[in-house]
Amino acid sequence: MLALQVDKKKLLVRDVDQPEPGAEALVRVLLSGICNTDLEIARGYAGFKGTIGHEFVGIVEEASDKSVVGRRVVGEINAGCGDCELCKGGDARHCPGRTVLGILGRDGSHAELLRLPLTNLVPVPDSVVDEHAVFAEPLGAACGIMERVAIKRTHNVAVIGDGKLGLLCAQAIALTGANVLLIGKHAEKLRIAERRGIETLSPAMGAKRKRQFDVVVEASGSPTGVTGALDMLRPRGTLVLKSTFEGPARMGEINQARLVVDEISIIGSRCGRLQPALDLLKKGALDIDSLISEEYPLARGVHAMGRAGKKGVLKVFLRP
Amino acid sequence: MLALQVDKKKLLVRDVDQPEPGAEALVRVLLSGICNTDLEIARGYAGFKGTIGHEFVGIVEEASDKSVVGRRVVGEINAGCGDCELCKGGDARHCPGRTVLGILGRDGSHAELLRLPLTNLVPVPDSVVDEHAVFAEPLGAACGIMERVAIKRTHNVAVIGDGKLGLLCAQAIALTGANVLLIGKHAEKLRIAERRGIETLSPAMGAKRKRQFDVVVEASGSPTGVTGALDMLRPRGTLVLKSTFEGPARMGEINQARLVVDEISIIGSRCGRLQPALDLLKKGALDIDSLISEEYPLARGVHAMGRAGKKGVLKVFLRP
Repeated sequence: MLALQVDKKKLLVRDVDQPEPGAEALVRVLLSGICNTDLEIARGYAGFKGTIGHEFVGIVEEASDKSVVGRRVVGEINAGCGDCELCKGGDARHCPGRTVLGILGRDGSHAELLRLPLTNLVPVPDSVVDEHAVFAEPLGAACGIMERVAIKRTHNVAVIGDGKLGLLCAQAIALTGANVLLIGKHAEKLRIAERRGIETLSPAMGAKRKRQFDVVVEASGSPTGVTGALDMLRPRGTLVLKSTFEGPARMGEINQARLVVDEISIIGSRCGRLQPALDLLKKGALDIDSLISEEYPLARGVHAMGRAGKKGVLKVFLRP
Repeated sequence: MLALQVDKKKLLVRDVDQPEPGAEALVRVLLSGICNTDLEIARGYAGFKGTIGHEFVGIVEEASDKSVVGRRVVGEINAGCGDCELCKGGDARHCPGRTVLGILGRDGSHAELLRLPLTNLVPVPDSVVDEHAVFAEPLGAACGIMERVAIKRTHNVAVIGDGKLGLLCAQAIALTGANVLLIGKHAEKLRIAERRGIETLSPAMGAKRKRQFDVVVEASGSPTGVTGALDMLRPRGTLVLKSTFEGPARMGEINQARLVVDEISIIGSRCGRLQPALDLLKKGALDIDSLISEEYPLARGVHAMGRAGKKGVLKVFLRP
């Protein structure tokens, strides 16, 4: 089967053996989405080798529970050891022995077939089209902010970054009733948020809003954004970090005394849950269509990755 | 009256005018304590000029409410504007217009007399001796950690730094029932914690305890300690920053991807409340006596500050 792989920082589409599901389920991928993390992995992030991709919708082709065969599903990307306290508590996302779809020790979704534990699969409601279902994973990650920070209706929240993740975060947070400002460089992307009633600003204007926000979400993918983001926080405010990238962040200019004196919180946030995201997608609570830019056959995966990294391009799909 | 002052990074005891209380209360200082923040201010931190010191016990000498005159008190160090939402909500600690005793825009406690708003003063129970009452402010700061982080009995907590603040933090956190480890370089200081049943380790041994702690409290006063402290945290663990110092922290080596992937929280913590600290002091819940090293007359304040900065020296008192 075809698979988009990374090998020694080289990106290529290969014809590889089909995965052997073993005790896991085998899923035929209908559609997968390119995430910025895929681009970071291609640059060397996480030292991954193999098939990349972790956003997908597919059909269960083989599983120990025959009743799920033929179901349309999305998948939780973290597969735990099953034995540790975290896994037994129902949350494998931080299992120290975990593998992560297309990121850590497990081939990913930019392929014709993938394998995942059956417990990772979540059925997709019939009314959610494939093109929206692929967003369950990144939208879950956006909703994961609310798992980590208690956002109130009275809060002023700034989201920095008008890429795919920033646009999902801004929309998801706005659903809580909080007052959301999206900060970004691209007028056409900001317009997507504006159509949802979200205020927007350029980075230069946003930087002037010093000490005004209860929560600032850094989703720009730029490590240098942290200092400016901190400046925008009120005392006892919370900075949420959403972006992962290769190499240490240049956080050298952070004044620790400010963190202490103003009692600032910095909160890392990664994966969320898929079910709340699917519920939102079923309700049509967000503008997803505007986040979709282009679609390519899997065989053109290398070209598609190049496109996904281009300015102005939002979600790029791969269809096996 | 005599006052220990900082003027252009120079430390000196001066004969100055008595403060005019105006609408505030006038307090005759019985005893004041030297905090590491005083040493940082003498190095230029916060750009302060005037009388330093913010830990004290004293007797109310003048106040609009005559019933409090003659009362023995300690004082909340933040004096708010009284008009903003924070102040109206009863918490002036982050009022943007605040002054802070001996730290920001307000002469401090290393003097014969000080002024503070009457609402800042908290009566000291008769059974709490002066030498313990002086600890109400730093112990309040230690208890302030529990305002910022929900520490559970099942948590493993490491406190880094066996100075005055670290020893108070370790003891205060241990009272919650959590499993506390104190990490420090000084065997005689670690012994104070050990006598309270707190486990201790050297920094070299502590650094080997990677990914084992739910909460790590950085109270060493060393900005370079942050990276090592982060390494000790479990996924979804919390680093509490307690130390303020002059200049930006050298946090440049922090890998932002680790904060995101492991969903780490970094929480700044500064001042706490005095009443919970006085309650603990009244109960005799902590070993305070072992934290007291030396006492000097206020006139020898410059020498006392030098002593307070010496290795192995814990709390140094000044008596006007």
